[in-house]
Amino acid sequence: MRETFQIKLDTMVSELARIARFAGQTMTHASTALQQADPGFAELVLSNRDKMRILCEQVRQRCLKLLVLQAPVATDLRIVITAMRAVCDLERMGHLAGHIATIAQLNHPGLPIPGEIRPVFARMSMLAVTLAHDAAAAIESRDQLSGERLAQADDEVDALHRQIFRILFSQDWSHGIKPAVDAALIGRYYERFADHAVAIAREISFLATGQPPQH
Amino acid sequence: MRETFQIKLDTMVSELARIARFAGQTMTHASTALQQADPGFAELVLSNRDKMRILCEQVRQRCLKLLVLQAPVATDLRIVITAMRAVCDLERMGHLAGHIATIAQLNHPGLPIPGEIRPVFARMSMLAVTLAHDAAAAIESRDQLSGERLAQADDEVDALHRQIFRILFSQDWSHGIKPAVDAALIGRYYERFADHAVAIAREISFLATGQPPQH
Repeated sequence: MRETFQIKLDTMVSELARIARFAGQTMTHASTALQQADPGFAELVLSNRDKMRILCEQVRQRCLKLLVLQAPVATDLRIVITAMRAVCDLERMGHLAGHIATIAQLNHPGLPIPGEIRPVFARMSMLAVTLAHDAAAAIESRDQLSGERLAQADDEVDALHRQIFRILFSQDWSHGIKPAVDAALIGRYYERFADHAVAIAREISFLATGQPPQH
Repeated sequence: MRETFQIKLDTMVSELARIARFAGQTMTHASTALQQADPGFAELVLSNRDKMRILCEQVRQRCLKLLVLQAPVATDLRIVITAMRAVCDLERMGHLAGHIATIAQLNHPGLPIPGEIRPVFARMSMLAVTLAHDAAAAIESRDQLSGERLAQADDEVDALHRQIFRILFSQDWSHGIKPAVDAALIGRYYERFADHAVAIAREISFLATGQPPQH
């Protein structure tokens, strides 16, 4: 009985890490759709939204079954609770990648993002995707990531987000209203995606320390 | 023992409903700060963010204690799980109201929102706040809200959100980049706030039916 429980718990945790990697991959595809105005990548992201939702629901169901049938305690209970919180974050990450793909799609065949802002989004995307993979690694090792590294990446995403507004509101902005609104929203989506990945890593620290995460 | 458990469960559910009402009230204050350029209301919203976070953490701790000490099953377990999901939504709703208050504050003493877009935000705010109170009522009665009414309010929020973009991207928009970006972000915050309230109401339907909510 106990052995079966551990196998089920391990399977659920592996699934969760797989979803976190999938979220990272989806954001990479969304960024490619955006930077290269590639409708194929945008469609891929949007068709993967359902897959993401189904994967998340499967983990939720696994967690519920573990709670109902096994009534876990102590660390095992904390793992299930953490997984249920993390799956909410992962589902949102999938939606946020979808929003970026939608903006790319609605602007096709044009590039929605003027040149001076594209490197900022490229860097935000790279940081956000790295944080998703960090979250996956944290889930698998069930341990804290290096808090300092995480805080650094999070701070850089926030600084890039502020940089976008400086570019948009400067006198030099000559691209008009729509690209400015698109850019402001895309910046927000990257920033939220990174925040959710950081939230997961913090939730994992709850596993390691037993202390609730500080948001 | 059983009686004590029920009292603790009822207390937790009452707290959760109280937080949902508090989220609604906070959004009302944020909208007042926005529409009347009133810095006092903006400060009130921002100072209430910590209170919101603490209230949410208290419900999480209550849920964990119920799970660890009482190992609830069936409906009682579902109530605790639903509460843990709902509290994540409520925490985000507090943040979203905070973002609107921050835009009002950064634009003080000016009004951040041009005249033609203000009635749209007033309506979005009213719907979002009503949905928060609906969520509170659903939590308290532990029953489904009228699905049709909920869907109607949700659809109207989405339609208003699209209307904002039509206004911003029309030839008549003469207010420049910054008010357009502010308006796009504020529209997004109202829409997300309403979405979270709807998500809670759907999670409550999970209690009533045992079927997982469809997002």
